[in-house]
Amino acid sequence: MEHKNEIKKEIIEAVEFSRKNNPMVGSITNSVTINLVANTQLAVGGSAAMVYLPDEGEFLAKAAGASYINVGTLLPVYEETLPHTAQVLNELQKPWVLDPVAVGIGLLRTDLLQKFKDYQPTVIKGNASEVIALAGLWGLEGGTAVSNVRGVDSSDSVMAANTAAIALARWTGGAVMVSGQTDLVTDGKVLAMSQGGSHFMEKMTGAGCSLGGVIGVYLVGASPFIAALTAAAVYNLAARRAEAKVSGPGSFQVQFIDELYQANARDIADNPFELVEV
Amino acid sequence: MEHKNEIKKEIIEAVEFSRKNNPMVGSITNSVTINLVANTQLAVGGSAAMVYLPDEGEFLAKAAGASYINVGTLLPVYEETLPHTAQVLNELQKPWVLDPVAVGIGLLRTDLLQKFKDYQPTVIKGNASEVIALAGLWGLEGGTAVSNVRGVDSSDSVMAANTAAIALARWTGGAVMVSGQTDLVTDGKVLAMSQGGSHFMEKMTGAGCSLGGVIGVYLVGASPFIAALTAAAVYNLAARRAEAKVSGPGSFQVQFIDELYQANARDIADNPFELVEV
Amino acid sequence: MEHKNEIKKEIIEAVEFSRKNNPMVGSITNSVTINLVANTQLAVGGSAAMVYLPDEGEFLAKAAGASYINVGTLLPVYEETLPHTAQVLNELQKPWVLDPVAVGIGLLRTDLLQKFKDYQPTVIKGNASEVIALAGLWGLEGGTAVSNVRGVDSSDSVMAANTAAIALARWTGGAVMVSGQTDLVTDGKVLAMSQGGSHFMEKMTGAGCSLGGVIGVYLVGASPFIAALTAAAVYNLAARRAEAKVSGPGSFQVQFIDELYQANARDIADNPFELVEV
Repeated sequence: MEHKNEIKKEIIEAVEFSRKNNPMVGSITNSVTINLVANTQLAVGGSAAMVYLPDEGEFLAKAAGASYINVGTLLPVYEETLPHTAQVLNELQKPWVLDPVAVGIGLLRTDLLQKFKDYQPTVIKGNASEVIALAGLWGLEGGTAVSNVRGVDSSDSVMAANTAAIALARWTGGAVMVSGQTDLVTDGKVLAMSQGGSHFMEKMTGAGCSLGGVIGVYLVGASPFIAALTAAAVYNLAARRAEAKVSGPGSFQVQFIDELYQANARDIADNPFELVEV
Repeated sequence: MEHKNEIKKEIIEAVEFSRKNNPMVGSITNSVTINLVANTQLAVGGSAAMVYLPDEGEFLAKAAGASYINVGTLLPVYEETLPHTAQVLNELQKPWVLDPVAVGIGLLRTDLLQKFKDYQPTVIKGNASEVIALAGLWGLEGGTAVSNVRGVDSSDSVMAANTAAIALARWTGGAVMVSGQTDLVTDGKVLAMSQGGSHFMEKMTGAGCSLGGVIGVYLVGASPFIAALTAAAVYNLAARRAEAKVSGPGSFQVQFIDELYQANARDIADNPFELVEV
Repeated sequence: MEHKNEIKKEIIEAVEFSRKNNPMVGSITNSVTINLVANTQLAVGGSAAMVYLPDEGEFLAKAAGASYINVGTLLPVYEETLPHTAQVLNELQKPWVLDPVAVGIGLLRTDLLQKFKDYQPTVIKGNASEVIALAGLWGLEGGTAVSNVRGVDSSDSVMAANTAAIALARWTGGAVMVSGQTDLVTDGKVLAMSQGGSHFMEKMTGAGCSLGGVIGVYLVGASPFIAALTAAAVYNLAARRAEAKVSGPGSFQVQFIDELYQANARDIADNPFELVEV
């Protein structure tokens, strides 16, 4: 219980830090949801900058408070940009979020995600199938050699990714989030299960990508575990509130951004979550 | 009349199939409207995945139920990705939609669209000028050697593309849709004219692109003609309903997505259309 | 006073020209906000077309009434596309808008923006830090050798870019806009300060980019100074009206597009601005 109160206090600090300091996050992300990533980062108090080229990835790695790398729609230049940027981030010990979208599809994606093992992303965020497949690719416990990834969707349940998530977090020394109906966050020692959300999240492309981008914002002023849990909490809270006010996915997205912007730190910290020692 | 009732029954089945089965569509499409394409595909029950690279195009051609290729904002890598993906689709006899956006502009676009003649897209969807120009490029009846395409807009009326549409449908053995104030759909034997829509559709970038993406969703569980007509019907219905509730193009887009999501199968089938034997 | 009334008359003409003639603007712009650029261009009466390839940039330079070049998210092909397109625009004396986003970041960006000095963009639009840095890059008065650009945000105040804006306008013979809380527009002889706007503009990614795209629309039928001032006026008016009706940045963007569409020419011309002789 005391642990939980301590965590809530840190969530409040994370929310307030980003609203006060407007932390800049550099992103290399897919073209489908790049606009939503930027707008959600702004909604929670951050500043967004996106690039494609190697030297610009390096520039942002150095200049931004945190970075977000999403391998959604790979372009040829990513072959150079992504490993270079991740290497710089790792060398400078700057925090970054990896979103291993659709791991298992295509040679370049597999090659890039394999390389990221050495660059130790501070937070890894994926759906259950992606987390299991990434652990498999990295040869860690809980992973499978064959990906169950179906396009960008998950065909595994969140709890099925439990072991993989813990193994990944122990490898990186950071945190892992498995997004789903309940969001699981772990630093390899503790598991937090964040509740809430909305069925409309599956009808809004980029719900997951933008969550990764928002973790980046919180990562500038909080630990990996708290940053991921804060992002999960504000997403679950905003989605639940938005769903209650709308009747379709178009208005849901609009209302969701409004709720991200309006949610106060106390309410975000009070969004229900459970803790389990690993 | 009997024919019309049979068609309505098939429209209902197409709508219900995609809501029940969440069919995945792989898309290679332009960056301007890629987000709207994904969100409209989700709204009608589908699942969306977008890629740029050749081996990823091949992966989706095989893994997805249908594919959508839109030549809107060509990137250099498309020179390899698009013919390769279209060839795989053709070899495997997987259904796909071609959107020949801005045919006539640029060398690569012309070259790609020329190549697609042999890969026989299952559904071709364009505005009147695009359909006429594509028929011209492929040396078919009703086409013109000189494109009247003006950027992404049409300067020809839908009925002026009648002959070209029929010729294209007969060439591919699939269906052709000419989008406009009235949408024309033909399989080379029958012409359907779908009514409805909204003047706001011209004020929302991607109205046409996303229509192509939604045809892809229906194409997984319906014939080319029914898939195209179902997409036209739900678009015309949702646009008419949305227009009645809003006062500008910003709120129109939001409401339009909500209406796509909410429209029931019976109402979609009952959206007015006329049939003419060719 | 007479001067001001003359300007208002020209603003009304600019607004009415684009609503009546649906002028096409070709854009090469970043992937983050490309959809918003297109939708705002449509909302004020224009037609939007976006490309990436060199020969397509040339095509649009020739076919469109004006062009918009935004260096936000550079891709490798831009190394060829942007100088070629700008050269064609300059040779044909076709009007174009330059948005020097994040000037100072990366080698290609610096090289491209340096080259644009010779191609004399008709309107340059940036935030204060960008305008100062561009003047510095071009060796003009008011510029600084070291960029204060922080990602895509400005760390300088609008009035601090006064001298740089005038120097740039005199170099190009066109107009310069410095966007900010108050928007400054100058042709090197007169300074106009346009009032209004909303604090939500900073929470909507692409507020600045889309403003550049809308200047392009007005540039087809108006002088550089009037085109820039008209765009500033309709943005400040629409943002103020939208802010009064919403409670978050999601619904702000929707309402803002509606207000762009609905604003009448007289109200746009009457949006407050001040004039100062240089």
